[in-house]
Amino acid sequence: MTQKIGVIGIGHAKFGKRKDATIRELAHEAVKPALEDAGITTTDIDAAVIGVAGDEFAAQGSSGALIHDYIGMKNKPMFRVEAACATGSAGIRAAWSLIKAGLAETVLVVGAETMTQVGSPKATELMAKAGDTRWEYPFGITFPGFYALMATAHMHEYGTTREQLSMVSVKNHKYGVLNPYAHLQREVSLEEAVKSLTICHPLNLYDCCLISDGAAAVILANEEKAKKLCDTPVWITGLGSASDTMMISERQTLTSLTATRLAAEKAYRMARVSPDDIDVAVVHDCFTIAEIMAYEDLGFCKKGEGGKFIEEGQSYIGGERPVNMDGGLKAKGHPLGATGVSMTVEITRQLRGEANKRQVSGAEIGLSHNVGETGQYCFVHIYAR
Amino acid sequence: MTQKIGVIGIGHAKFGKRKDATIRELAHEAVKPALEDAGITTTDIDAAVIGVAGDEFAAQGSSGALIHDYIGMKNKPMFRVEAACATGSAGIRAAWSLIKAGLAETVLVVGAETMTQVGSPKATELMAKAGDTRWEYPFGITFPGFYALMATAHMHEYGTTREQLSMVSVKNHKYGVLNPYAHLQREVSLEEAVKSLTICHPLNLYDCCLISDGAAAVILANEEKAKKLCDTPVWITGLGSASDTMMISERQTLTSLTATRLAAEKAYRMARVSPDDIDVAVVHDCFTIAEIMAYEDLGFCKKGEGGKFIEEGQSYIGGERPVNMDGGLKAKGHPLGATGVSMTVEITRQLRGEANKRQVSGAEIGLSHNVGETGQYCFVHIYAR
Repeated sequence: MTQKIGVIGIGHAKFGKRKDATIRELAHEAVKPALEDAGITTTDIDAAVIGVAGDEFAAQGSSGALIHDYIGMKNKPMFRVEAACATGSAGIRAAWSLIKAGLAETVLVVGAETMTQVGSPKATELMAKAGDTRWEYPFGITFPGFYALMATAHMHEYGTTREQLSMVSVKNHKYGVLNPYAHLQREVSLEEAVKSLTICHPLNLYDCCLISDGAAAVILANEEKAKKLCDTPVWITGLGSASDTMMISERQTLTSLTATRLAAEKAYRMARVSPDDIDVAVVHDCFTIAEIMAYEDLGFCKKGEGGKFIEEGQSYIGGERPVNMDGGLKAKGHPLGATGVSMTVEITRQLRGEANKRQVSGAEIGLSHNVGETGQYCFVHIYAR
Repeated sequence: MTQKIGVIGIGHAKFGKRKDATIRELAHEAVKPALEDAGITTTDIDAAVIGVAGDEFAAQGSSGALIHDYIGMKNKPMFRVEAACATGSAGIRAAWSLIKAGLAETVLVVGAETMTQVGSPKATELMAKAGDTRWEYPFGITFPGFYALMATAHMHEYGTTREQLSMVSVKNHKYGVLNPYAHLQREVSLEEAVKSLTICHPLNLYDCCLISDGAAAVILANEEKAKKLCDTPVWITGLGSASDTMMISERQTLTSLTATRLAAEKAYRMARVSPDDIDVAVVHDCFTIAEIMAYEDLGFCKKGEGGKFIEEGQSYIGGERPVNMDGGLKAKGHPLGATGVSMTVEITRQLRGEANKRQVSGAEIGLSHNVGETGQYCFVHIYAR
C-alpha cells in the first residue's frame, strides 16, 4: 500500500459564457490538452471518472456516459460522481481510490458543467434545489441567502468588515486577470467591490462567484506509470473528506464549516504536514465570506482572524499563505462539476512551476479545498512535487 | 493488496409505489436493517457512497447529502455516484475501491430512487433523457423503443420467439412472489404474458420492468473487520466494468451488449472463475430481451441460444444457471439507483443460504450484472462465500 498516486496530465477549457460549446465539447476541450500534457492517448488510460453536478443544467441525464463516449473512452470503465459544488474533488478522490485499489493504473478525471444556458435565475433555482427541498427550498432561500447568514454571523461574532469581504474579491480578480482560462479577466477596485449592487445583505455582486460553463481534466497514475510517463509528477499525498447536516439550521455554528475542519484534519494527518507547510492553496470562495472562513477552518490563521488575514495581504503572493492564484471561483468562474478538477489543475501548475505571472515561487506543497453546497460536504487534497 | 473486501450487512426497503415515503425515508428503511444485520451502528462506519440516478425524479438536487444526513452519517465522508440504471453497482465498485485503497475500513452503500411520484409518462421521459439529448431523445425514442430494436434484431438473427421473451417474464414473476420486498408479487401465465398490451413492438407490457420506488443498502468491510464483525461475510472477489457508445446507432451489433461482455471478462479473470462456476446470478432484465442477451453475453449459453436457455428452464432453480431468484427488475421493480445495491443484497442472501423458498441450494459463487441505459455502461461483480 505504499504506492503513490500522481497527476501526470492536466487540461482546462476556457471558463465563461460558452454558447459555442455543449457540455461534451467543453469536456473535450479540457481532455485534449490533458492527454497532450501527459504525452499519451486514451488507449493508455484504463478508466474515467466524470464529474457533473446537475442533470438539469445541460438538460441531459447520465451526462457522464455522453462525455465518456465523446472524449474517446468507449469501452473503458466509467462512473459519474456528484457532490454538488465539490463534485470535481469527489471525482479526484474516487479516481485516486480506483488506482490505489488496483482496479486501474491510469484514470482520467473530467469535470464539466454548462450553467449559463438556463439563465442566472434558473441556475440559482437549480442550485437552491440542492438545499433541502422539503425544509429549505420551499421557503425561498437560495445560496446567496445561506452564505449571507454566515457572513452576518461572522461580522457579528468577529467584527469582520464589509471592506474585508470585498478585499477577497479584489485579490481574486487581480489574479484572475493572469489566468487565461478565467471567466472574468478584469481587476476590481476596493471601492467598486464595496459599492456594488446588494444581492442578499450583506453580500453584494462582487461577493458572489460567477455562473459559468466550463470543464477541466486531470490524469492520475500510479507511481510506476507516473514516473515512466512524466518528468514532473505531482503526488496527491493527502485526502480528507467530511460532511455535515443537510440543513443549515441544524449546524452548531454559522461561522465555521465543520466539514472543512474535519476534512482538513484528515488530509493533513495523511500527508503528514501542517497548515504551515502549505506553500500555495486554492480554496472554495463561492462567496467572499467562504474564503475568509476557509482561511480559519484550514488553519491558515486563528478562528475569527480571517478578515485580518486578507486585510494584511497574507493570502497574496508574498504573503504567509497565497490563496486562489487562479482567480478562485470568484473570477475564474464556478462551473460546478469542473471546479474541483480545475483546482487540481491549478495546484499542479503551481507545483510544476508553470503558473507564469501568478506563480508562487518555489512552491513544493499545495492544498485544494472544495465545499459542496453550504458545507454538506468538503474535500481537501494535499499535493507535493 | 491481498486484503479481501466482504459484505457484512444487507438491508432492503419494500419496492413499490411508495406514496408513504420520501427518498430519504426509503433509504433509512434499507439502512436500518443493514446496520442491524451487521450488528453495528453508523458510528462504526467510516464513509458512505450514495447511489441515486436522477435529480428530477425526487425533485431534489444532491440527494446524496440529503440521504447521508438522514441516515445518521453526519460528518463522515460521502459522495454520490451515478451510472443511470447501473448506479447501485457503480456505488459498490466505488465503495470497494475506497476500502481497498485504505481510505476506509467500512463503507455503507445506499441506493435509492423514487420514480412513481412523477407518473409513468414523465418517468419514461426522464429516462429517455439519459439517451443522447441531441441525437436520440429529440426524435422521440424512449427505452422500450431502444430495447424493441434489440429484440427485433435478436428475433431476426437467432429466431428468438415471442414466447421465449414471455418465458423470462413468467419465471421472474414466479420468483418475485417469493420475495417479500418485490413490487409485484403475483404470478403471470405464459398466455397472459404473450397476449398483454403492446408497448413498443415486439415488446409488450410483461416484457417491461416496473417503474418503482425503493432503496437497498449494503455494508462493506475489509477482511479484518469483516471477520471480526460477521460470521458469514460474502466476499466480492471480482469486479468488471466497461462502457459503450452513447448512441445505439453507433453500436457494432444490436443483439449483444459489448459492455456486458467486456465487464464479464474482467470480472471472471479477477475472480479466477468461469461462467460454469456461477451457482446463482442476478442479471439486468429491464426488458425480457435484456435477460436473454445477458445469458449469452455472460457466457451462460452460446450466442443466439438465450431463447432456448429460458425455454429449457436452465435459468430456473434446478437448471444449469439459476437467474433472478429475487424476481428481477421485472417483478421486483427497478428503482434506478437502488437496483444494483439490491442485486448485491440478493446474492449475499443466496450465498448465506438465507433466501428461503427461492434459495439456490448450496450456492457458493454468485454474480450480479447491472446495465446502465442501453449498454452505455455495465458492471459485473462476482461473489464468493
